Amino acid sequence: MTHGSYQVMAQTTPTRHKDRVSYDRLAAHAVLDEAVVCHVGFVIDGQPVVLPQLYARVGDQLYLHGSSGARALRAARNGGLAVCVTVTLVDGLVLARSAFHHSINYRSVVIHGAAEEVTDESAKQAALASLVDAVVPGRSAAVRGPSRKELEATTVLRLPLENVSVKIRTGPPADDEPDLELPYWAGVLPLSSVPGTPEPAPDLLASIPAPAHITGWVRATHEARSLS
Amino acid sequence: MTHGSYQVMAQTTPTRHKDRVSYDRLAAHAVLDEAVVCHVGFVIDGQPVVLPQLYARVGDQLYLHGSSGARALRAARNGGLAVCVTVTLVDGLVLARSAFHHSINYRSVVIHGAAEEVTDESAKQAALASLVDAVVPGRSAAVRGPSRKELEATTVLRLPLENVSVKIRTGPPADDEPDLELPYWAGVLPLSSVPGTPEPAPDLLASIPAPAHITGWVRATHEARSLS
Repeated sequence: MTHGSYQVMAQTTPTRHKDRVSYDRLAAHAVLDEAVVCHVGFVIDGQPVVLPQLYARVGDQLYLHGSSGARALRAARNGGLAVCVTVTLVDGLVLARSAFHHSINYRSVVIHGAAEEVTDESAKQAALASLVDAVVPGRSAAVRGPSRKELEATTVLRLPLENVSVKIRTGPPADDEPDLELPYWAGVLPLSSVPGTPEPAPDLLASIPAPAHITGWVRATHEARSLS
Repeated sequence: MTHGSYQVMAQTTPTRHKDRVSYDRLAAHAVLDEAVVCHVGFVIDGQPVVLPQLYARVGDQLYLHGSSGARALRAARNGGLAVCVTVTLVDGLVLARSAFHHSINYRSVVIHGAAEEVTDESAKQAALASLVDAVVPGRSAAVRGPSRKELEATTVLRLPLENVSVKIRTGPPADDEPDLELPYWAGVLPLSSVPGTPEPAPDLLASIPAPAHITGWVRATHEARSLS
């Protein structure tokens, strides 16, 4: 599978706004490659837990990582952890004439599956490099790689992208016909996430300039990362 | 309780990076008031589900809403829905000399509790107005309010802010001492969410200018909303 769609599964079948949902593989990858943080949901003692996490997409796999001592990661080592990973980009505030039709423009991906530990050492090293490059493309080649002790302190999880849905809202507000004559402004206020000026570490050696992967950082688009 | 701290509960006791966690009430409110979207986690048929949602904080209550037909909202009507609501602001990318110490600067709030339906009609109307004002302060006074049919189509949930924790990372990378001499740039690339130029709806009456609550929109800070 290189293009095409993810399968429609019970968990990803929406109960409303069906027109906003797709299972398109490239659309899902584009959202995953643009965002920085995902929200990982899992169940501990019957209760839901949702934590923000960094992640990396490589092909049709999503990688997560964390401290080997963390509750969820310990659970994942015992046969996989049922997770729901959700990634959301907010593109704008949608202001309608009616309170009811207020909304946001957004792109979100919801992934259900079992996250399993990556135990093979070279696969684990590659996944950790991809986690660094997912945040700053090119960065993993310009850092000290993980030591044995750091590798052991870190657990990497792999979640296959199989049960995946994409939800996207774009465009102006959808006011009801009778409301169009009301004297209220309606439209969209776009929002975007932008980088500021790089802040060198206070203890940075004076001779080291900020490299191009920092000064030229833009949020990775699907096009920019489609080779991976 | 007007200031002070939320109680430390088993669910909000971290297993790592304890220094980043607090239970400070104003710190939690500041994060909740600045973000636009939360991620709501709940359990359906034993499986975790995480969905992005708008929300509003009013005092020590968090309000959520959605279509009365939505799965989770139907579940909430039968005695409350166990949820974990997580709100995350990404403030910067933390680039260290070592792959291991890469991180992000962020502020997140995790709330555990039972979300219950708001059935009282005036409380529901007030909550819906606060949901509009949470996104664009002042907006609820400049829209058509909900009709009876719209009220019935919408379910509002109330989640008490009791089991709440805040996690914050700020500052430069925390490299290991022996890595400080390595020839790699280290520092922080700040990120922020900024509004663009308002885009009037194509069918907007020509005589209506964008109001101050749109042209002057800035993400609500705690100070700006501390009266509510």
